[in-house]
Amino acid sequence: MDTLKTRRTVRSYADRDVEAALLRELLETAMRSSNTGNMQAYSVVASRSDAVKQALAPLHFNQAQVTTAPVVLTFCADFNRFSKWCAQRKAEPSYGNVQSFVAAAIDAVILAQTFCVAAEAVGLGICYLGTTTYTAKGISEALRLPKLVLPVVTLSVGYPVEDAAVKPLSDRLPLDGILHEDQYRDYTPEDIDRIYDARESLEESRYFVELNKKETLAQIFTDIRYNKENNESFSVAFVDALRAQGFL
Amino acid sequence: MDTLKTRRTVRSYADRDVEAALLRELLETAMRSSNTGNMQAYSVVASRSDAVKQALAPLHFNQAQVTTAPVVLTFCADFNRFSKWCAQRKAEPSYGNVQSFVAAAIDAVILAQTFCVAAEAVGLGICYLGTTTYTAKGISEALRLPKLVLPVVTLSVGYPVEDAAVKPLSDRLPLDGILHEDQYRDYTPEDIDRIYDARESLEESRYFVELNKKETLAQIFTDIRYNKENNESFSVAFVDALRAQGFL
Repeated sequence: MDTLKTRRTVRSYADRDVEAALLRELLETAMRSSNTGNMQAYSVVASRSDAVKQALAPLHFNQAQVTTAPVVLTFCADFNRFSKWCAQRKAEPSYGNVQSFVAAAIDAVILAQTFCVAAEAVGLGICYLGTTTYTAKGISEALRLPKLVLPVVTLSVGYPVEDAAVKPLSDRLPLDGILHEDQYRDYTPEDIDRIYDARESLEESRYFVELNKKETLAQIFTDIRYNKENNESFSVAFVDALRAQGFL
Repeated sequence: MDTLKTRRTVRSYADRDVEAALLRELLETAMRSSNTGNMQAYSVVASRSDAVKQALAPLHFNQAQVTTAPVVLTFCADFNRFSKWCAQRKAEPSYGNVQSFVAAAIDAVILAQTFCVAAEAVGLGICYLGTTTYTAKGISEALRLPKLVLPVVTLSVGYPVEDAAVKPLSDRLPLDGILHEDQYRDYTPEDIDRIYDARESLEESRYFVELNKKETLAQIFTDIRYNKENNESFSVAFVDALRAQGFL
């Protein structure tokens, strides 16, 4: 519990390898977590070579940790293996559809997150690369994913450098901002003010608003970080990737 | 690590409440996990009343744990709260699209799985209800979810009854069945045989094949549990739910 409470994302890694045996143990541990019908419709690609990490880097918008981390793990929804098994066993697979993708994607994320918890428990640091679903088709090509395999989340993994380990915890909304009793109770304008107050008051937030010449923190999200143009073009790209990999 | 390695799904719960304060602590702990851009585009609905659990039960195909668990947690992708905040802060939100849903859904699953790890660490038992994305529209109605909120995973949570706690670990594929070094190496027929051998040899598997009058274990999946008709109709239903909740 303490590990979970004090964790933080680590983007800077020490020049130290993540031992293959340790990585295997962590993934085997993570595989104990729940999955749909015990189909285990996921795969993990562990990329360590410079060539593959260099190929992945631009697909993750050249975030430094793709090449500086000793290992990059791409967690994929994978109905390829399961379908091959069915076909070899006189069974007719039919997993080229949205629902199968969604189930496999959920299971891939459950696996990834359990891996993160296990990795942090032994002193490793991780960072999720949110770019994975923006460029899923390119990543599929770089990792040579066959049909019915699609990347969902990517982690950079390594031992933290010392100063990364002492970064302050990032802020989170108060629990009542996300928890609903029994049924959803929609937010009033007063609720919204209350929920976001602490975050908006942070010195860091004020600094970014000023730096970006914006009026409000929200505008940094809507105008810059997660803007309409990107959200829409990445949506088209993701549907395209689903189709290319045979899930649509 | 030991908790992670020896965990198992718990479907039978003792007649003992999960204290609200404990549930809050576990969710607050889970909120420390990673999320996209710190937007925290998720919500958790904690259903405890008989009325709401009874309404949810048929939507989860009357799996007993929906009504027998003291609390049912529905983890939702939620861009409603974030969009309301943007609109109140002179910012124009544009999160009614596939990519925003995918990012929020991934974050909701990361939150749910971290909650599971924390809950199991304090002696609770959990079960994922894979039915959530089959009936997402119905669940949205039962929980009164507004637009831009869609359920992704559901957990039943409670203290295990004694005999549930001693159930054997369920089998998993060998790690080499899901792990790829550097890039994906597609499976040969021999790989498939090797990967599924242990599972097919289980007494439990042979029993189910015989019970269902099938030739192979794979046929239980393709013909019964995850068959074409269901996969396709649930796909249509899920796309319909995405549209109904404003993500398409």
